[in-house]
Amino acid sequence: MTMLTMLTTEAAAAGSLAGEWGALSSVLVVGTGLIGTSVGLALRARGVAVYLSDRDPAAAALAQDLGAGLVQEPTGEPELVVLAIPPAAVPLVLLGAERLYLQATFTDLASVKSEPQREIEALGCDASRFVGGHPLAGRERSGAGAARADLFEGRPWVLTPSAASNGRAVARAAQLATLCGAQLVTMTPERHDEAVALVSHVPQLMASLTAARLAGADDDLVALAGQGIRDVTRIAASDPGLWTEILGANSPFVRDVLDAVSGDLATLLDALAKSTHRSGDLSGSRPALSAVTELLERGNAGQGRIPGKHGAPPATYTMVPVVVPDSPGELARLLVACGDAGINVEDVSIEHSPGQPVGLVEIAVKPAAAQVLADALRVRGWSVHF
Amino acid sequence: MTMLTMLTTEAAAAGSLAGEWGALSSVLVVGTGLIGTSVGLALRARGVAVYLSDRDPAAAALAQDLGAGLVQEPTGEPELVVLAIPPAAVPLVLLGAERLYLQATFTDLASVKSEPQREIEALGCDASRFVGGHPLAGRERSGAGAARADLFEGRPWVLTPSAASNGRAVARAAQLATLCGAQLVTMTPERHDEAVALVSHVPQLMASLTAARLAGADDDLVALAGQGIRDVTRIAASDPGLWTEILGANSPFVRDVLDAVSGDLATLLDALAKSTHRSGDLSGSRPALSAVTELLERGNAGQGRIPGKHGAPPATYTMVPVVVPDSPGELARLLVACGDAGINVEDVSIEHSPGQPVGLVEIAVKPAAAQVLADALRVRGWSVHF
Repeated sequence: MTMLTMLTTEAAAAGSLAGEWGALSSVLVVGTGLIGTSVGLALRARGVAVYLSDRDPAAAALAQDLGAGLVQEPTGEPELVVLAIPPAAVPLVLLGAERLYLQATFTDLASVKSEPQREIEALGCDASRFVGGHPLAGRERSGAGAARADLFEGRPWVLTPSAASNGRAVARAAQLATLCGAQLVTMTPERHDEAVALVSHVPQLMASLTAARLAGADDDLVALAGQGIRDVTRIAASDPGLWTEILGANSPFVRDVLDAVSGDLATLLDALAKSTHRSGDLSGSRPALSAVTELLERGNAGQGRIPGKHGAPPATYTMVPVVVPDSPGELARLLVACGDAGINVEDVSIEHSPGQPVGLVEIAVKPAAAQVLADALRVRGWSVHF
Repeated sequence: MTMLTMLTTEAAAAGSLAGEWGALSSVLVVGTGLIGTSVGLALRARGVAVYLSDRDPAAAALAQDLGAGLVQEPTGEPELVVLAIPPAAVPLVLLGAERLYLQATFTDLASVKSEPQREIEALGCDASRFVGGHPLAGRERSGAGAARADLFEGRPWVLTPSAASNGRAVARAAQLATLCGAQLVTMTPERHDEAVALVSHVPQLMASLTAARLAGADDDLVALAGQGIRDVTRIAASDPGLWTEILGANSPFVRDVLDAVSGDLATLLDALAKSTHRSGDLSGSRPALSAVTELLERGNAGQGRIPGKHGAPPATYTMVPVVVPDSPGELARLLVACGDAGINVEDVSIEHSPGQPVGLVEIAVKPAAAQVLADALRVRGWSVHF
């Protein structure tokens, strides 16, 4: 059983808990930025009554016009109050809201969990009615105008129940995540913060550090920028105020990861300094650069672990490349040939250069099956490049 | 006249030079990886005779099967020999190829220019027949199988003629770039290397440094990775051997940029250390974090300078957001209303959350026109959020 399966099982337990409390029918969303408005849109699509509030009336009005809910006092107490506000604001807003709604349960959506949880307990909030939450979803655009009902679809949604959190609060927050189409995951607040430092907060800083180099650069240098740096720096367009707060609230874990990056960077700089060109050594070996290769290889390994369809296929499969004519039915004919050869195809990727009469089909199979498949396809006349 | 216009004018001059020498009709591509094979595909689509060679016969055979040219000795001397090989290999391969083809001109496609140019001159190559070149295009996948005829379409293609380069060599290399659909740019080898350190080589290292943190991380942490880190680290999947060579060959300029990154990183770490949570200061001000905000703002500014449609619209326009029903003809009706108001629409972006009956249309106009447009649309009954 993998870690993820365990978490999913816990999530299922949380989901079944929801049964005791009935369907979620009334939610107040506090904060109508990108995330809060997206929650409103997703809940409205499932028929939940959604009330909206924001300290900026124009932002709330836009969210309402987009269909995320109604900007008015809830009719009776909402079952769940969703605090879609920056992390530092969560404890004080929770304190106030708990005094207004004496029965409601509460969750937040902020991207830092342990410091706000400590503060909530220190402030004397009723921690039993609160469960921290964080949907791992976002866009580099902010505000209600960028909201989408499908923002959370298939994304992890972490709940960080404290020892004090009661079952009803956990169930309501779990229902929220499920109604938004997300995958429920439970973690301690500290483990969550360690994870987001690694997969979100430090990548944000790395994007900003890279983009910051362009800020004062000459036009003719910047003109050569292409898709690579565009991808590396896409999230550098994020809101500096919000991110300063997030990074400040998670600074211990962020520093741990950044310290490690800083160590790798020092090693890189040292290796590059030792390898710097001395006339005539161009074609010679450069042993100093082995540290650069090692870093790039670790980058390969780390990149390959990122979940999702965008990375390379899992290393457990072997690719068999076949040049295939770009005519109707050829791909089907190839896959039939694989079946005839008794080979189970795990995945297929197709490369086709525009205008070319042929494409390259890469068939992913179990390593033991690759040579068998290559031979079988060659016998049947296919152009196999294995 | 901007720097880019100047370069384009130089490029036009280079292009008109081509007239003296007639159309490019015969090219030998040495090296059938991603870039060499893509050049072959692009040239074949324009009817140029292309011959292919690679020290790995299987790679050359795949490129031929994909339609990039013929794996055979050229019939007579090729007019242009394209060295699509790693930078360190360029000088020696050029030396050999010049002795084989006594009339041909030569160019390369490597992503480092000044060190190979020095080495070419030091080795006693005929530098008059050579012009360095670098198409700013690539993919994180390598090899002939990933090649595309449109890889260079609209991308900058830098030529770095030396004092020795003759007109025929410059013209042939310029024709190559133009036939591949690229935008011709000329620079000195040193200026080119300074540019690519900034927009390509350091971003590659930043992606690898970020991804390397995932290499040994626990599964439950990596499971939270999403689109942000996926974009930041996409190019970390690149070939470590090739990139070690590129970084080694451009180490002085790469170190300059990395030193600056290292300085920013030290400032960040210092600011985060000073801001680290002391119980009770959660809602207090954190003056130490101003250095974090400053870095994130510089990241915003730098990211906004990257050319292409993917960034924010130019800051010279003001956006007027309008909530628009998702019904046929509504967008047209809105744009007609803008015209009726006498406002020139510079750009339009549409946000539409799936399943919602309304979308948000942002109309980009000159700043002076924004209030006029907002008022005019409100009078006509549109839901303007300006």
